Amino acid sequence: MMGLIAILTVSDRASRGAYADAGGPAIREYLAEVLASPWEPREAIVPDDIGAIAAAIEAFAAEGCCLIVTTGGTGPAPRDVTPEATEKVCTKMMPGFGERMRQVSMQHVPTAILSRQTAGICGGALVVNLPGRPKSIRECLDAVFPAIPYCIDLIHTGNPSPPRLETRPERMVAFRPQDSV
Amino acid sequence: MMGLIAILTVSDRASRGAYADAGGPAIREYLAEVLASPWEPREAIVPDDIGAIAAAIEAFAAEGCCLIVTTGGTGPAPRDVTPEATEKVCTKMMPGFGERMRQVSMQHVPTAILSRQTAGICGGALVVNLPGRPKSIRECLDAVFPAIPYCIDLIHTGNPSPPRLETRPERMVAFRPQDSV
Amino acid sequence: MMGLIAILTVSDRASRGAYADAGGPAIREYLAEVLASPWEPREAIVPDDIGAIAAAIEAFAAEGCCLIVTTGGTGPAPRDVTPEATEKVCTKMMPGFGERMRQVSMQHVPTAILSRQTAGICGGALVVNLPGRPKSIRECLDAVFPAIPYCIDLIHTGNPSPPRLETRPERMVAFRPQDSV
Repeated sequence: MMGLIAILTVSDRASRGAYADAGGPAIREYLAEVLASPWEPREAIVPDDIGAIAAAIEAFAAEGCCLIVTTGGTGPAPRDVTPEATEKVCTKMMPGFGERMRQVSMQHVPTAILSRQTAGICGGALVVNLPGRPKSIRECLDAVFPAIPYCIDLIHTGNPSPPRLETRPERMVAFRPQDSV
Repeated sequence: MMGLIAILTVSDRASRGAYADAGGPAIREYLAEVLASPWEPREAIVPDDIGAIAAAIEAFAAEGCCLIVTTGGTGPAPRDVTPEATEKVCTKMMPGFGERMRQVSMQHVPTAILSRQTAGICGGALVVNLPGRPKSIRECLDAVFPAIPYCIDLIHTGNPSPPRLETRPERMVAFRPQDSV
Repeated sequence: MMGLIAILTVSDRASRGAYADAGGPAIREYLAEVLASPWEPREAIVPDDIGAIAAAIEAFAAEGCCLIVTTGGTGPAPRDVTPEATEKVCTKMMPGFGERMRQVSMQHVPTAILSRQTAGICGGALVVNLPGRPKSIRECLDAVFPAIPYCIDLIHTGNPSPPRLETRPERMVAFRPQDSV
């Protein structure tokens, strides 16, 4: 099955056109670089509003996206609510993603601990929060992407026609162990 | 006081006998290897059902177990609900256990971030989620067991006849600092 | 604006005078050592009671403190409830602080995983739980303080007269990146 992947930019300024979104294009470029299997992007830009973010994630999951990647809104500023919106619509949280991304970002900046990035499962989709800056986006995706294809396999346990993401092995090896985690 | 330790296997297949439980025996063997103080196992196998897992944990805690170790059901598959059941019955969560186990497993497989293992306190018992595979069980127990005897001491602060776990020092040194954490 | 910083000691024994508080003075000394900008301490000692801890944090935030540091009550003992009180009054949690402090403490003692320290935002204040022992307090502050001034900047996004903490660069460099996290 074709993999539908949603890229959700969360930004007050970008949503009203006051600022060109840099995070969304950086994610699209990254996915084009690492994915070998056919996939199609779904994209949206929403303001830093819990209801708007939650509704966008749920709509992408309902449309059949297997992966929903957000960018922006994960810091401690008053308008940053992407993790709260993610938690609101996910039935299961995946704490290992946020831990790992903070740990890797920590090698670059001591303020990595300020990121509240999380991940979880909404319907048949893995939802992963990424930072807003393109450089940090790449560092985070490099850290967690090798585990994403197998995570999507597991989310679709029992699905007769599951999505299946394959990576370009020369760029990134997606790890699929024989046994379950 | 004799240490009662519960080993709870969480698996749909093992609970209906369609599959020989490998996790439970691996945990029992590990405990026999590291513990020097007298202890007695309590064992059960339940399906991947929040209610059944939660009830089993509560029953073991009510029986006086000081440690309840689960195996299985911590991944992102639809039936994996062991962390949710654990959180449901615990009055306090211990986030450091999951963080540490994922961190150590990360040295072996990039999919370690997919584990949602957690730990918490239910009555007088420390509850710790472990993975399903015997090899990963040992890696996780090696990572967190040195802190478990002291954790049980602290949970039983004020208990006139607390359980006390001692390890075989040649195999594992259980750390008991002088001051509280 | 002058930085008001609250130091909240959580301890049954210290609150009834049965024990001289060592954590509070260790934090005050640390802050005097690293901060270059003008600041004023606010201090209180409360028992290990969720309501008392929560009320003290909220009162300090209402008074205009930009940083509220607690000491004590973060372990697994029955009376340890500082993280629960923190979570109760915070509108946003900052998981990276606890992760980082446990990770750094892990280099000193295997029982570091028993700490349930967390951090979050209450009004205009960053609330950070620290351990009770002076030595561990310093290790934890060294690990997270470089990110605290910028965190407070972000919490006060949109505030026309925000507090601003500056550190003594020869002792500690507070990291302020150009872009947001």
